[in-house]
Amino acid sequence: MRHLPYEDLGFAKIDHHRAIRDHIPEVVLGLGKTPDQVAEIGKRLVEQSGRLLVTRLDRDGYRALQAAVPDAEYDEVARTAVVDRDPQPLLPGVSVVCAGTSDIPVAREAVTTARMMGSDAGLISDVGVAGIHRLFDHLPALMQANAIVVIAGMEGALPSVVAGLVAVPVIAVPTSIGYGASFNGLAPLLAMLNSCAAGVSVVNIDNGFGAGYLAGQINRLTHSPPRAD
Amino acid sequence: MRHLPYEDLGFAKIDHHRAIRDHIPEVVLGLGKTPDQVAEIGKRLVEQSGRLLVTRLDRDGYRALQAAVPDAEYDEVARTAVVDRDPQPLLPGVSVVCAGTSDIPVAREAVTTARMMGSDAGLISDVGVAGIHRLFDHLPALMQANAIVVIAGMEGALPSVVAGLVAVPVIAVPTSIGYGASFNGLAPLLAMLNSCAAGVSVVNIDNGFGAGYLAGQINRLTHSPPRAD
Amino acid sequence: MRHLPYEDLGFAKIDHHRAIRDHIPEVVLGLGKTPDQVAEIGKRLVEQSGRLLVTRLDRDGYRALQAAVPDAEYDEVARTAVVDRDPQPLLPGVSVVCAGTSDIPVAREAVTTARMMGSDAGLISDVGVAGIHRLFDHLPALMQANAIVVIAGMEGALPSVVAGLVAVPVIAVPTSIGYGASFNGLAPLLAMLNSCAAGVSVVNIDNGFGAGYLAGQINRLTHSPPRAD
Amino acid sequence: MRHLPYEDLGFAKIDHHRAIRDHIPEVVLGLGKTPDQVAEIGKRLVEQSGRLLVTRLDRDGYRALQAAVPDAEYDEVARTAVVDRDPQPLLPGVSVVCAGTSDIPVAREAVTTARMMGSDAGLISDVGVAGIHRLFDHLPALMQANAIVVIAGMEGALPSVVAGLVAVPVIAVPTSIGYGASFNGLAPLLAMLNSCAAGVSVVNIDNGFGAGYLAGQINRLTHSPPRAD
Amino acid sequence: MRHLPYEDLGFAKIDHHRAIRDHIPEVVLGLGKTPDQVAEIGKRLVEQSGRLLVTRLDRDGYRALQAAVPDAEYDEVARTAVVDRDPQPLLPGVSVVCAGTSDIPVAREAVTTARMMGSDAGLISDVGVAGIHRLFDHLPALMQANAIVVIAGMEGALPSVVAGLVAVPVIAVPTSIGYGASFNGLAPLLAMLNSCAAGVSVVNIDNGFGAGYLAGQINRLTHSPPRAD
Amino acid sequence: MRHLPYEDLGFAKIDHHRAIRDHIPEVVLGLGKTPDQVAEIGKRLVEQSGRLLVTRLDRDGYRALQAAVPDAEYDEVARTAVVDRDPQPLLPGVSVVCAGTSDIPVAREAVTTARMMGSDAGLISDVGVAGIHRLFDHLPALMQANAIVVIAGMEGALPSVVAGLVAVPVIAVPTSIGYGASFNGLAPLLAMLNSCAAGVSVVNIDNGFGAGYLAGQINRLTHSPPRAD
Amino acid sequence: MRHLPYEDLGFAKIDHHRAIRDHIPEVVLGLGKTPDQVAEIGKRLVEQSGRLLVTRLDRDGYRALQAAVPDAEYDEVARTAVVDRDPQPLLPGVSVVCAGTSDIPVAREAVTTARMMGSDAGLISDVGVAGIHRLFDHLPALMQANAIVVIAGMEGALPSVVAGLVAVPVIAVPTSIGYGASFNGLAPLLAMLNSCAAGVSVVNIDNGFGAGYLAGQINRLTHSPPRAD
Amino acid sequence: MRHLPYEDLGFAKIDHHRAIRDHIPEVVLGLGKTPDQVAEIGKRLVEQSGRLLVTRLDRDGYRALQAAVPDAEYDEVARTAVVDRDPQPLLPGVSVVCAGTSDIPVAREAVTTARMMGSDAGLISDVGVAGIHRLFDHLPALMQANAIVVIAGMEGALPSVVAGLVAVPVIAVPTSIGYGASFNGLAPLLAMLNSCAAGVSVVNIDNGFGAGYLAGQINRLTHSPPRAD
Repeated sequence: MRHLPYEDLGFAKIDHHRAIRDHIPEVVLGLGKTPDQVAEIGKRLVEQSGRLLVTRLDRDGYRALQAAVPDAEYDEVARTAVVDRDPQPLLPGVSVVCAGTSDIPVAREAVTTARMMGSDAGLISDVGVAGIHRLFDHLPALMQANAIVVIAGMEGALPSVVAGLVAVPVIAVPTSIGYGASFNGLAPLLAMLNSCAAGVSVVNIDNGFGAGYLAGQINRLTHSPPRAD
Repeated sequence: MRHLPYEDLGFAKIDHHRAIRDHIPEVVLGLGKTPDQVAEIGKRLVEQSGRLLVTRLDRDGYRALQAAVPDAEYDEVARTAVVDRDPQPLLPGVSVVCAGTSDIPVAREAVTTARMMGSDAGLISDVGVAGIHRLFDHLPALMQANAIVVIAGMEGALPSVVAGLVAVPVIAVPTSIGYGASFNGLAPLLAMLNSCAAGVSVVNIDNGFGAGYLAGQINRLTHSPPRAD
Repeated sequence: MRHLPYEDLGFAKIDHHRAIRDHIPEVVLGLGKTPDQVAEIGKRLVEQSGRLLVTRLDRDGYRALQAAVPDAEYDEVARTAVVDRDPQPLLPGVSVVCAGTSDIPVAREAVTTARMMGSDAGLISDVGVAGIHRLFDHLPALMQANAIVVIAGMEGALPSVVAGLVAVPVIAVPTSIGYGASFNGLAPLLAMLNSCAAGVSVVNIDNGFGAGYLAGQINRLTHSPPRAD
Repeated sequence: MRHLPYEDLGFAKIDHHRAIRDHIPEVVLGLGKTPDQVAEIGKRLVEQSGRLLVTRLDRDGYRALQAAVPDAEYDEVARTAVVDRDPQPLLPGVSVVCAGTSDIPVAREAVTTARMMGSDAGLISDVGVAGIHRLFDHLPALMQANAIVVIAGMEGALPSVVAGLVAVPVIAVPTSIGYGASFNGLAPLLAMLNSCAAGVSVVNIDNGFGAGYLAGQINRLTHSPPRAD
Repeated sequence: MRHLPYEDLGFAKIDHHRAIRDHIPEVVLGLGKTPDQVAEIGKRLVEQSGRLLVTRLDRDGYRALQAAVPDAEYDEVARTAVVDRDPQPLLPGVSVVCAGTSDIPVAREAVTTARMMGSDAGLISDVGVAGIHRLFDHLPALMQANAIVVIAGMEGALPSVVAGLVAVPVIAVPTSIGYGASFNGLAPLLAMLNSCAAGVSVVNIDNGFGAGYLAGQINRLTHSPPRAD
Repeated sequence: MRHLPYEDLGFAKIDHHRAIRDHIPEVVLGLGKTPDQVAEIGKRLVEQSGRLLVTRLDRDGYRALQAAVPDAEYDEVARTAVVDRDPQPLLPGVSVVCAGTSDIPVAREAVTTARMMGSDAGLISDVGVAGIHRLFDHLPALMQANAIVVIAGMEGALPSVVAGLVAVPVIAVPTSIGYGASFNGLAPLLAMLNSCAAGVSVVNIDNGFGAGYLAGQINRLTHSPPRAD
Repeated sequence: MRHLPYEDLGFAKIDHHRAIRDHIPEVVLGLGKTPDQVAEIGKRLVEQSGRLLVTRLDRDGYRALQAAVPDAEYDEVARTAVVDRDPQPLLPGVSVVCAGTSDIPVAREAVTTARMMGSDAGLISDVGVAGIHRLFDHLPALMQANAIVVIAGMEGALPSVVAGLVAVPVIAVPTSIGYGASFNGLAPLLAMLNSCAAGVSVVNIDNGFGAGYLAGQINRLTHSPPRAD
Repeated sequence: MRHLPYEDLGFAKIDHHRAIRDHIPEVVLGLGKTPDQVAEIGKRLVEQSGRLLVTRLDRDGYRALQAAVPDAEYDEVARTAVVDRDPQPLLPGVSVVCAGTSDIPVAREAVTTARMMGSDAGLISDVGVAGIHRLFDHLPALMQANAIVVIAGMEGALPSVVAGLVAVPVIAVPTSIGYGASFNGLAPLLAMLNSCAAGVSVVNIDNGFGAGYLAGQINRLTHSPPRAD
């Protein structure tokens, strides 16, 4: 195992070797960190790589980050902050689809993450299965994608329907949108794990980041020249 | 409250007043009863009304019943036994739809029950959401129904899709078909309870009887002359 | 599959074809939508059909809606807003029954929805099973109904008792009223799914809308002339 | 704390001081014990007190016990064995009520236990809430009881109804009778814990013994002369 | 079934027949009711019987009640209000025991309820099983009781220990005191349901009222003259 | 939406359009199907495409299949049957890693599926996190992969460790291997969904098929020429 | 990180470096392994170190092991097999306590494991909290221990009581002994995790091995000379 | 059983005998106690022993405590207050390791507790398994420890990795850090209970106190002279 470099801030140990590889963003999960911790980690990452993605960042955390990294841009809906000081052209091939208007915050986290991974990600919203005809108009766009993120709360049925129509990986994101027997997203999570359609895999409830990251990874592999084995 | 008659067998108290009303079958839930209990209850019910539906009846239970009621007919797949000594013409208007081949036992319990309720019930099988085009061929038939039973295991998505396409009640039946995170039918149960489509209600896991009964009730109401209020 | 029209607002895709069919209200689930989104969707729906039902609408959402649709009427207890610019006579045949005083908000959501579906729905409250004699006085009214919505929290026993007394569909709504081992409505949800009475189906916890919608559907079918098959 | 005597068999430590107090049976839970262990413990207990109650005893366990204690009587339905070499007159005042025929094994365990506690316990079966009129015929008997055991599977609603009609303690026993969303008795357990009727307490799923024991305790207290305080 | 009187307030139906029987308090569960509803129900009950117990009453509810029933006394810790205009001497025989200081609010609800049932209830607090010697000093008092309420959060072990030391009914109340794997009281609830000691039954999490009511019922039965059967 | 062909066997509707696209195997889930159903569906699929993959096939099912399709090959450990009458060269790029010896059946299902998808999949077994040095020897092989399937029961930690070491998608498969608080695979399922490593997605418990399918999809995309957009 | 040796059998990778350190047994978890796999792994381990512990070994597995390692000794109750070709004197200081006779299989797994770790472990059985006086006779023995394993099913209360009486680590093992709301050991697991006594930690349900291993580790540390730091 | 002294404050019973034994701190769990109760209990404990540890203490509780015990020191991150008026030299041998920055509050509670137990505890933070190389730099420190506390949220994998590298007890603490399918710490709790590494035991979610206490106990045993048996 090679010796990988990291920087020790005491309360956090920051990996810089990932930034050396192209198009992997430096990521900070804002959840559970104090504003000062977010700001300090964010500052060091931007100094090293000129790139940063912070997720689950509340207003207070953003204010502290902005003081340390003035060009950090905040998306209040997605609760993300991004810095990209040397943006590269984005590769086409990622689609983000969500079932309802209420799923848009998670969808935007996925879109932003995929973009930080170097992929241009289109967003198709409000195409839930109770009005399945709305989805069909978007089939041509879906047919062009190399990886599709499908986001749904409530019964979580959309990923199965999409995966039955395309031949590429579908990354399913259950959301906590719903009430009662949704049990904060347990219902769509279980539904997606039990999908009868092949090609579906699942990330954590509300984890737009994880889905966007994975879609970006797959899309980049697809654009790379085949390896000579 | 009016005084309703019943017959006391000691271990069971049998209602006969229901048989007086048309088209409500005498029903025995076989689960948890000994073969002798099933046979004795079944015999009394047939003697009173000439009709009988036993559900969740295993082979041993059927053998005991057959000795007491020789014309009882057994469906080994649905695990039902029926007697109907004076069959009436069936009313059209009930459809039973199931997502996969494995859901057929539950679907047949629903079909048999709806028939005992006086409704002719057609069965459309293997039209799960991962190949949604298979469902669309059956839309004309579904559009004719007054009540639709939709049965699915795994992610339990089919009721939402069907309810989005029709304007009549959809009775959703989750099945225990699946494995792992299905948790014996919990996954489709929760999915169906969280359906984003209006007009969906849910019965217990694998409860084809309950769904067929309710579909029969609704269909009969539909065929009755409107009440003069 | 026929091509169904909808209007694309970007964040939402609105079906208008449903409004063309009589007595199906345009419905917006307020939960998870911003006040601006509710207002914009609501405005478009009212412009098309003159009718609107918004559920789970908080005060802020209502204020935004009222600015866009001044004749929207708010029920703070049920958290619903309604517009009906050309009201039709209501059909009799729906009863809404609730077990306790605390279940009234859910019951009023059901009543309002049934009315928007074209059915006149009476409300019988506080007839829980621990004082079962209070229910019996209302039996004559229940005997007149074509569909009965039964709402209960805590042990969720009322639907079974009602369904044992009538011969029409009972739509059971568990509520999150309770504490401790209620687990936010899980207890009555499971109880209702396991009802020993035939004719009971269940909707999501606190889903008065879903129950009222379904009762309205069934009642309308009952008042329609029988189909000639 | 007083020094209480017990006998040490190595694998088990047997309390004999309980037998000294009247009418508390020596009890052995058969579950998880080998036939030899049951037989040896049973033999010692009978030698000391002439009384024995073994619960959850399978056929193999009974055969071993019978070899050691020939006068042990087995009830295959309740899976209990009893010895009572000096039976005393039984005190009236315990009623055992069960919702369905399938609950009878648990009910008989409760009846047997109450009898070993010195109480004469009547059994009323198959009076579930879906046919509530069957219960009302038994109200006079219930009104005589000092403690009532109410046993139900499925939705577990019967204890609430009974407790609403009487003024004495109701001991509720959920059973694992049911399927699907019963989750092996979880549904009636939660329902009973959430009973809206005062005076209801709950024991473990299928725990007829615990309920019969408690009913016997209460009934004996009731028959004792009031304490002079 | 006899015809029982009640008063219909529209949103609530109040039983008065219970007040006719001695020592059963008129009870209102404050949870889920508006302050106005509590006040109106409370006022009617006091007018009829001169007695009232309101549980789970917050400050706002109490203020409304006090305006309608000025002599209502509030216990902020237990969140109960009581009125008793003709207090009777209390019967000895109920003990309330709690495992930790944090369980005191539930314990006081139990004590207040038992008193409204006519029983004098002593409170023994902070005798949890991790310092079991603290319990033993109180054994003489426990040995005098006819019914013992045992309240515990966390591992919920105290009822088993107490029931192993006495020969009277132990009513176990799990509390939501704890964190993490307590899951809001699920841990002690399950522990108490699985008690290896006979004579233990369980009420809902934090349900001090239910336990105090039941203890009062049992104690009163004990003080009544034996029935002549 | 294009009109997709399928063949209707009554109990099943078989899609043939998928076989037209290269390297997507015809798949039958054996679970819940009778041996006759498996045989008939399998026969039709092989007749159309010369390829077949049956999963979760027990011995009886295989015997029926073998009678209909004599060249079907059975892997008793993986419980799969395969037919491939015109095998193509396999593309390198898939690795399957499992934590323990007991996970091998699931791993072999994944390997077989990936091969039917056209990918050569190597298997690295018994490299669980409690002896993490065993994994490191295999890092060079993992670094060559385009997609990695990581299979683990018990604490399900291996996917996080692997994903932290590579830059390609990791498809995590929880297994039901374990006991007690594994709750049939719930423990590793939850662990994998909460992975702190980016690039991890999850399929159902024991779903080697789903993981192998997805890995094959990703690997094929990687070997395809980049799309000209 | 040092390079640790292991032997690769293909289906398993065996660590031998652990055997180099004294008194750590070579352990094989039998669960999920075929008899042949157990036999082959067992044989290699014995060849290297002359010591072996196999847990959760059924009869078939033992027969295969015995053929390969004739001096392996089987304990059918604990389902363990052991080989120790050069036994060393055992260190005193471990006590294993179990609540009921039914917990003995788990207790014996713990005792056997502790012995293979080099500690002499005494077994105290049937001292559950419902007869707490039986425990107190064993206090002197418990006071001598350096580590105590406490095993209990049902309500799982014993570890709290023991930890309140001693000042050394208590390792709690919940067992699946029980029924109903035990939910296969969930009840005692949660109870133990919520222990109000300090010094208690918990291992998996029925994991006698894990508890015995940990007790052995602690006891050995206690017997080692203090480190010079 | 010896007679142990305690002081009765009415609402609490304080053990003083523990303070007599060295290095066991007087501990108060702040959760669920009023500020006044904390202050009064804290004052009495400090008066007796000069030492105090209060856990889960909020700002209000601290203010009340400070008024009663002015030299109490508060750690707002860990939410602990400590008093130690005669500090002793600390024994080396405890390490506290946490997976992420967000786990630091729990880690500091563990460190503080271990110190109050007389052990010097080092803290290694942010060494989660997704960047496992960060852990390896700390192996020399871990190899010196007699007991290691390992704290992790999310997938909870770190304890297994650590326990595979060392030969001393690992006390695992799941944290509620995470979201979605973490279910407030259930995911890492289950993962840790299912650890495939021997030597791991688990305490409650977020229970840094329990882990620090146990590590201190083990470390002290290790530093004590071996008992002469």
